[in-house]
Order: sequence, then structure tokens, then C-alpha cells
Amino acid sequence: MSSAYTESLNRLIEEFGKLPGVGPKTAERLAFHVLKAEQSEAMALAEAIKDVKIKIKRCRTCYNFSEEPICSICSDPRRDKSLICIVEQPKDVIALEKTGACKWVYHVLGGHLAPLEGIEPENLTIDKLVERVRNGDVKEVIMATNPNMAGDGTSLYISSLIKSTGVKITRLARGLPAGSTIEYASGKILTDAINGRQELD
Amino acid sequence: MSSAYTESLNRLIEEFGKLPGVGPKTAERLAFHVLKAEQSEAMALAEAIKDVKIKIKRCRTCYNFSEEPICSICSDPRRDKSLICIVEQPKDVIALEKTGACKWVYHVLGGHLAPLEGIEPENLTIDKLVERVRNGDVKEVIMATNPNMAGDGTSLYISSLIKSTGVKITRLARGLPAGSTIEYASGKILTDAINGRQELD
Repeated sequence: MSSAYTESLNRLIEEFGKLPGVGPKTAERLAFHVLKAEQSEAMALAEAIKDVKIKIKRCRTCYNFSEEPICSICSDPRRDKSLICIVEQPKDVIALEKTGACKWVYHVLGGHLAPLEGIEPENLTIDKLVERVRNGDVKEVIMATNPNMAGDGTSLYISSLIKSTGVKITRLARGLPAGSTIEYASGKILTDAINGRQELD
Repeated sequence: MSSAYTESLNRLIEEFGKLPGVGPKTAERLAFHVLKAEQSEAMALAEAIKDVKIKIKRCRTCYNFSEEPICSICSDPRRDKSLICIVEQPKDVIALEKTGACKWVYHVLGGHLAPLEGIEPENLTIDKLVERVRNGDVKEVIMATNPNMAGDGTSLYISSLIKSTGVKITRLARGLPAGSTIEYASGKILTDAINGRQELD
């Protein structure tokens, strides 16, 4: 950080530099853009940043981002509240919603179990989920955690907690990603595809 | 091609250059390697190339590569010959066999239907497959063509031909590739994963 800059400029560069994927050079460029920009533009950016932090909270039901106490998905009467899709992060909700195939509601865990990194069940919203399943009229819980070790482990742990309620527990299909080729698929992917093969209609 | 080289060297460079991924410079380097190599090494390479062309034929049953009239998979008594897995290319057999999960036999189509490129059903081994299904004691045909438009089209065409025999027709599962993340999965992949979700046990 060059000390030829004023203190406030240095601080802005430093703050921009904390953003993911923003290195010192990019941070400097962003900071200079702000410096040269119209007052209104710079203020709008600052306000937008503040607003996000102030207004966006967690939905009290599903723990997705929401500006209201209950998010727009949980309060949508057309959604089937007896189907709960479990995801790790709010970004996963966005990815799934883009398909237009989802009539369900969500439960956002806030990550996956990672005991070695200190992420235990109590650091996620697992207890709230168990409560939802026990209290609500839930028919099916769809596990949509990431298809890797951490996601699978988290799903299995949750499954062990709610199995006794008799709720149907499913998970998103594993198999060949559409548009790929058999030749370059990994052994794990092919094994999933073989074991999960379904009747062609 | 420099004309300073002798005719035979030029021809070798040209031939190496026809290999996939081998540009003129690489072809030249390979050719010079051969030129400088021990006589025995060069001859061994030449023989190996010839051998492959002379010895490797197509299995009379499944059309996979084979040095015998019937390939090692088709002649393996431990294989369940009532399950036929349909693949486009011999490379797909190798990929599937690596999983160790396959107890079936194969049918290698030799590609996929592509009418615009002039690849019609008669250019593949589809008629031989229909014959196998009609004559043999086949219980299930597993479609393992590539999970893309060409592969799916080929599978559907074959399915339409053999459906009347009453044989069970399945295809490899579509869904999330193991080890990936929900966030970066395409809409098509997620839709497959949602529609094909299966009970978690």
C-alpha cells in the first residue's frame, strides 16, 4: 500500500482488497474509480452496501436471505409446504429456482458439517429443521446438499435425526451431467449413473 | 513441408502430422526422433502400428475391438448376457469397465446418429443389435450413449425399434456429477437431478 495516498484512499483500497478475487491492483483501480466518479454514484454504491447489510436478514422459517421476517418463497401460497428442500447456501436456492421446476419450500443450513474446521450441527440451522419436520405437515425432505463428501455427510446426519418421524427422505439424482460424454466421466460419476439407471420411456 | 528433406522423411512427417493433436512442428520432431533412434526401436514402432491394424478386429457379437472373433467380455462366462449395455464407442466400454460395477455385456454402435453428417442407422451396428435382442434371451437393454442431443436421439431411435419386443429399456442416471457443487450446476443438470431424485437410505 503506497503511503503517498491519503489515509481515506488507503483505507478504501484496503477495503476493496478484502473482496474475493480483488487483488491490490484491482482494489487500487476500483478506489480511483470511486474517487473520480460523480458524488451521487459513489454515494449510491455506499448506500447500497449499507442497505444490504441493514435490510437483509434471514427468513424465520427457512433461513434464506429475506428483507421481510418471512421470505417470498415461504409466504407464497402456491408453494407446497409439505416438501422441504435442504440446501447449504442461499446461492443454491437461486440455482435451483432458475430451473423453474421447484414447487417446494427450502431450508438453508448455512453450510455443511465440517468438524475439523469447527463447524458442528449447532453452527447450522439443523435444529430448526428438525423442529419444522416435527411440528409441520411435512411429507418429503429433499436433500440438495452438494454432491461431495461434506454435503453427503451433512445429509446423512440430518437423515439420522429425522428418520424416526417417518417422513420420506430423498436426494437429488446423481449421474451423468447433461451434455457431457461417457468417455471423460469419472468412475464415481459412472458408478452413480449405473446404479441409478432408470427406465427410458 | 520443407523440400530440403528427403522424400521418405517428408512422408513420415506428413504421416505423423495426420495424428490427432500433432501439428507440423511436433510431426517433424517425432520424425527426427525416429530417424535418430536405434533401428530396433523404429522397427518395433512400425510393427506395433501394423500389428494393431492387422490383429485388432471387431467382436462378431458386440462390435467392440477384439483380437479374437469374439471379444473377452462376450466370451466371459461370468457376464450376464441378458443385460446389454449400448455404447457409442470402444472408449466408452473402457470407461464403464473401470468402475468395476458392470456385470453385463456390451453393444458398440460405432458412433451416434447424425443425419446432417450422413450418419444414418445403417452406418451403425443398430441392425445387429436389434437382431441380438430379437434372437437372444435379453432381459434389459441399458442405454449408455452420451448424455447429449446426439446420444439421446440415438437411444430414442433404438428404443423405438426394440420396444415391441417387450425388453426392459433403461438409461444411465442423469443428475449431479459426484464431487460437484449445486451452485455451479447448469439448469439442465439441476432439472435432471430434481426429476430423478431418489430415496436416501
